[in-house]
Amino acid sequence: MEKPSIPKGTRDFGPTSMSKREFIFQHIRGVFRKYGFQPLETPAMENLSTLTGKYGDEGDRLLFRILNSGDFLEGVDIQKLLARDPGTSSKLTEKGLRYDLTVPFARYVVMNRHDITFPFKRYQIQPVWRADRPQKGRYREFYQCDADVVGTDSLLCEAEIILMINEVFEKLGIKDYTIRMNHRGILSGLADQSGAMNENALFVAMDKLDKMGAEKVKDELLTAGISKQGIAVLFDRLNFSGSNADKINWMRTEFASSQKGTIGATALAEVLNLVSHFGLEENHVHLDLSLARGLSYYTGAIFEVRINHVSIGSVCGGGRYDNLTGIFGMPDVSGIGISFGVDRIYDAMEELTLFPAEANVSTNVLVVTMDEKCFQYGIMVLSSLRSRQIAGEIYPDTSKLKKQLDYANKKMIPFVVIIGSEELETGLLTLKNLATGGQEKITLEKLLQYDF
Amino acid sequence: MEKPSIPKGTRDFGPTSMSKREFIFQHIRGVFRKYGFQPLETPAMENLSTLTGKYGDEGDRLLFRILNSGDFLEGVDIQKLLARDPGTSSKLTEKGLRYDLTVPFARYVVMNRHDITFPFKRYQIQPVWRADRPQKGRYREFYQCDADVVGTDSLLCEAEIILMINEVFEKLGIKDYTIRMNHRGILSGLADQSGAMNENALFVAMDKLDKMGAEKVKDELLTAGISKQGIAVLFDRLNFSGSNADKINWMRTEFASSQKGTIGATALAEVLNLVSHFGLEENHVHLDLSLARGLSYYTGAIFEVRINHVSIGSVCGGGRYDNLTGIFGMPDVSGIGISFGVDRIYDAMEELTLFPAEANVSTNVLVVTMDEKCFQYGIMVLSSLRSRQIAGEIYPDTSKLKKQLDYANKKMIPFVVIIGSEELETGLLTLKNLATGGQEKITLEKLLQYDF
Repeated sequence: MEKPSIPKGTRDFGPTSMSKREFIFQHIRGVFRKYGFQPLETPAMENLSTLTGKYGDEGDRLLFRILNSGDFLEGVDIQKLLARDPGTSSKLTEKGLRYDLTVPFARYVVMNRHDITFPFKRYQIQPVWRADRPQKGRYREFYQCDADVVGTDSLLCEAEIILMINEVFEKLGIKDYTIRMNHRGILSGLADQSGAMNENALFVAMDKLDKMGAEKVKDELLTAGISKQGIAVLFDRLNFSGSNADKINWMRTEFASSQKGTIGATALAEVLNLVSHFGLEENHVHLDLSLARGLSYYTGAIFEVRINHVSIGSVCGGGRYDNLTGIFGMPDVSGIGISFGVDRIYDAMEELTLFPAEANVSTNVLVVTMDEKCFQYGIMVLSSLRSRQIAGEIYPDTSKLKKQLDYANKKMIPFVVIIGSEELETGLLTLKNLATGGQEKITLEKLLQYDF
Repeated sequence: MEKPSIPKGTRDFGPTSMSKREFIFQHIRGVFRKYGFQPLETPAMENLSTLTGKYGDEGDRLLFRILNSGDFLEGVDIQKLLARDPGTSSKLTEKGLRYDLTVPFARYVVMNRHDITFPFKRYQIQPVWRADRPQKGRYREFYQCDADVVGTDSLLCEAEIILMINEVFEKLGIKDYTIRMNHRGILSGLADQSGAMNENALFVAMDKLDKMGAEKVKDELLTAGISKQGIAVLFDRLNFSGSNADKINWMRTEFASSQKGTIGATALAEVLNLVSHFGLEENHVHLDLSLARGLSYYTGAIFEVRINHVSIGSVCGGGRYDNLTGIFGMPDVSGIGISFGVDRIYDAMEELTLFPAEANVSTNVLVVTMDEKCFQYGIMVLSSLRSRQIAGEIYPDTSKLKKQLDYANKKMIPFVVIIGSEELETGLLTLKNLATGGQEKITLEKLLQYDF
């Protein structure tokens, strides 16, 4: 018999990793809710017409497509199929797996526009699938955790995104991180000043600064048709350093004659102002003119978060967009979104050993019994513990003590209650703390009041 | 532009239904955890070799298959393809979507047998996909909530399943329901007594008693080769009525000469005995000799739960199996599982109006402000509320009062804090309860201590 396996790029999450992942999800979900975001779930399968053309050619290529059920050759032009005509697969297959949470969200908003109360704040925590080549840290199935507000252009949303990021990281115990923030208006101002004809080519190149370094990016900019002088101007601007307040002042002067640049500087100043109104002392925000992010649909503020001293890349990103629902025929809806990368946060927390021990505890107490009579009594003890909402188990048979203790140890159950003939006689149960190894004799009454 | 839509048989879950669904999930998850079950998640995509042949021909037909990425015709025998040779699709496609949670669980156990601590108690709450014809209450994507124990044949597991069902339904507020329980041994005893050669044909027919009535089932049994006399004996047995204790006594006599029947009667008696040891007074269990359930892999106790006075069918089912992992080359692992059908429980709770109003509340307080100055102050108020872990929002701009209150009403936010120029002057905020319409003037200090 063939050994069972799972598709490459996918993972099982067993109890240990699930508990840690749930620790992350739970805190992100809690913060989203606390800020008034409501849950949404969309189907794993979307019509291909919803998905294709939304993520560029590369994205189309990376979509997982579902073979039509029944006679999947029905309506397929066989000659085209054999010629590998790319259009053919759209007859074989009419559905694809969710590629991100943003496009389904836009699709949902457009389909439900008459029932939705705007501004609409939704969060969505679901897996997405990409037929990418699997490698370390890159999977074919992974979760996204998104929160978006649509239907308002209030900069309060930008400020609250910064607050939410701070609160999530605080709850996760991550202290050393940087929220880089920039604005599309500033990027456009930079593009003007450097004489770039093709804004997007400029942003795509700038986005690689971290990975490739300045020299290679300069080469790429030259190739993209930006003059040496323009590149010099650009890097002069990018090199400005100082506090956020310094940068705001400098931007206001630098982009005084650029309408887009001025909008950007004013917006960034107002966002920081609102954040301080909320009373956040250390906001972790670092204005960064070089932050571009690849996605061309951003129109306002953009964000990216990195955990410092961990070589894991961005763990959270987002920004404002003004026309996300336009692709489905509903123009002029301004929105802003943020997405947390759970897999990377998980890896970073492992590297920094930030998961608390409690993240691993599922059962609090195991009742261990030495014979049939003790087992009967143990059932009553367990039942009493559970009625106090304590997560408990009884070992299902009267195996040797060592075997039962092994079970508790391996399952990281912190306490065992041992019931043998002596305990049955005296009415004093043995409570053992497996972490410390210490044990005490305790009455049932005291046990039920014990702070597990 | 084409109107966006979602694939037939799939659903979006917006905030209202998500909150109610989450209410159900949360209680089921809570009970699973309290009983020592640990979470597992498996990939949406499994290798087709894992899935095919596990659910019968019908199941194979209903699998959603993923088209291979890249050149999906590579290695495909075109002649066979054109001839619709069913084997061909296995070259076009090597992965399928999860069809249930049981087979992936068995696959996981076999793959991780050396790392797992047995008895292994896992729960799994994930969607599954079936290319079934969509109809009322039947979807192509739906969630399953499963809990299974493998690696022990202790009847404690059966008893705890009954306890868990009781606890879940109690938490959900469902009072009137019946847990039907039977045992494969009893079914085998019945098959022997009625002279049925083909046990499975008998069980499949019996499974239809509810839907088709006795006469049609009798016809089916005749067609399956069971004699008129055998059918008469069978229905005589099925008609025995009485308390569970009566039934146990009767079974012990009736099946005294049948080894399998005796095993069944003894096991059922012991399960009920253990349940009463746990101190459960009304256990909702109803022994039912006619309960067969379609799945042939059950080898011990079987369960099915119905909510009374609701025409929704079974909302929960399960049973003991002795060879689930055998299909992946790991024989002789006894296990028992239960699965809650969330969609049906949801429908039943809607019909019985059992969802508590709180299941709909996400944000507790909306801060409503009348001008820019009030907005600044409102941000401070909101920040203070949030620091007390109260879920709050501020309307993102200073729109008209009515618009802001509309937002709160539609989002079912129970309280609003109104801040206008008067409130700013006097320092007394207006707290309005949107459910009662009542309002009061309140200091910030009192507001922060208010029990929302």
